[in-house]
Amino acid sequence: MKGARGRRAVIMIPIGLLAILVGSVAPAFSREEKKAEAFSPYVDSTGKISLPTGFREQWAYLGTWVVPDPKDPATGVHDVFTQPDSVIAYKKDGRFPDGAVLVKEIRNVQADQMTTGKAHYAQKMVHWFVMIKDSKGRFPDNPNWGDGWGWALFKPDDPSKNASTSYQSDCLPCHVPAKSDDWIYVRGYPTLR
Amino acid sequence: MKGARGRRAVIMIPIGLLAILVGSVAPAFSREEKKAEAFSPYVDSTGKISLPTGFREQWAYLGTWVVPDPKDPATGVHDVFTQPDSVIAYKKDGRFPDGAVLVKEIRNVQADQMTTGKAHYAQKMVHWFVMIKDSKGRFPDNPNWGDGWGWALFKPDDPSKNASTSYQSDCLPCHVPAKSDDWIYVRGYPTLR
Repeated sequence: MKGARGRRAVIMIPIGLLAILVGSVAPAFSREEKKAEAFSPYVDSTGKISLPTGFREQWAYLGTWVVPDPKDPATGVHDVFTQPDSVIAYKKDGRFPDGAVLVKEIRNVQADQMTTGKAHYAQKMVHWFVMIKDSKGRFPDNPNWGDGWGWALFKPDDPSKNASTSYQSDCLPCHVPAKSDDWIYVRGYPTLR
Repeated sequence: MKGARGRRAVIMIPIGLLAILVGSVAPAFSREEKKAEAFSPYVDSTGKISLPTGFREQWAYLGTWVVPDPKDPATGVHDVFTQPDSVIAYKKDGRFPDGAVLVKEIRNVQADQMTTGKAHYAQKMVHWFVMIKDSKGRFPDNPNWGDGWGWALFKPDDPSKNASTSYQSDCLPCHVPAKSDDWIYVRGYPTLR
């Protein structure tokens, strides 16, 4: 652990310098673009959401939902991740901070009969859901933003494209039972307790 | 993310200094104690294993096993974590490095009927299994070490004590089907692929 933290610290310094240099030599960014950039590295100035990478190895894991029955619409293993800072903030006041990102990775569920029981686990990638907390209603004209969040769906055949065209029809319906918890099923996330 | 890393970097320096100071003013540690300390912060000089903390927030998540049936001996949600460095090493050569720690946190399984299917998720803490990779056979006389690993079980009523008295009877039997993968059920861990 110490080795990893040491290396991260060493890497942080050049990135910090780079950010200052880019900021000073590239004033061509519009004010709006800078605002969006400051808000989230996964959101452009129009509210277009991109899929984070490295979350399985580097982010905090919140919890898993397993829907074993292949006949159920949500069948699969749903692993949920967020940034480590978002966990720290949530534990303080029970709210996801502005810019918090939740990634739900959904994979096929496989079940093996073991001596100790029938064990279900994740296999092939199905798709990813992404939510980005927006406390300021930044993109009122973008149909994938509203109710305090940006909403996205990414499929493995084109992970560069948000496949949702409207969060109200493509995302929100399944979150209605969690409305009182800011649309998040926190009861399945022991890391937040 | 940047904030957390920055804070970690700041904290690392005093810890590094402290280690140097302790090393120079406290030569009373035996050579054997120093050796065990260098091997793992979770293992003392006799091979006594302690339960890591903070792994849900700070370590890498490997995957989950869900055994939904309450009549099955292993019923529950089994979340598995390791150090971020161990994931990097495993991805290089398909082996857990010396000192790698695997923590399996087992919680009661809860199932809710949702509009999209019956969703299983983790609730109350049951216990933790811990395995620590030992490529050098460091503790031949300790009954919780062998077959390349240290083995431990911690219960919530006394998480300071390894409840396993012998890995061969308390731990190994359930791992026999995974013997060819160095006793680890890697097929359930997408983070390693």
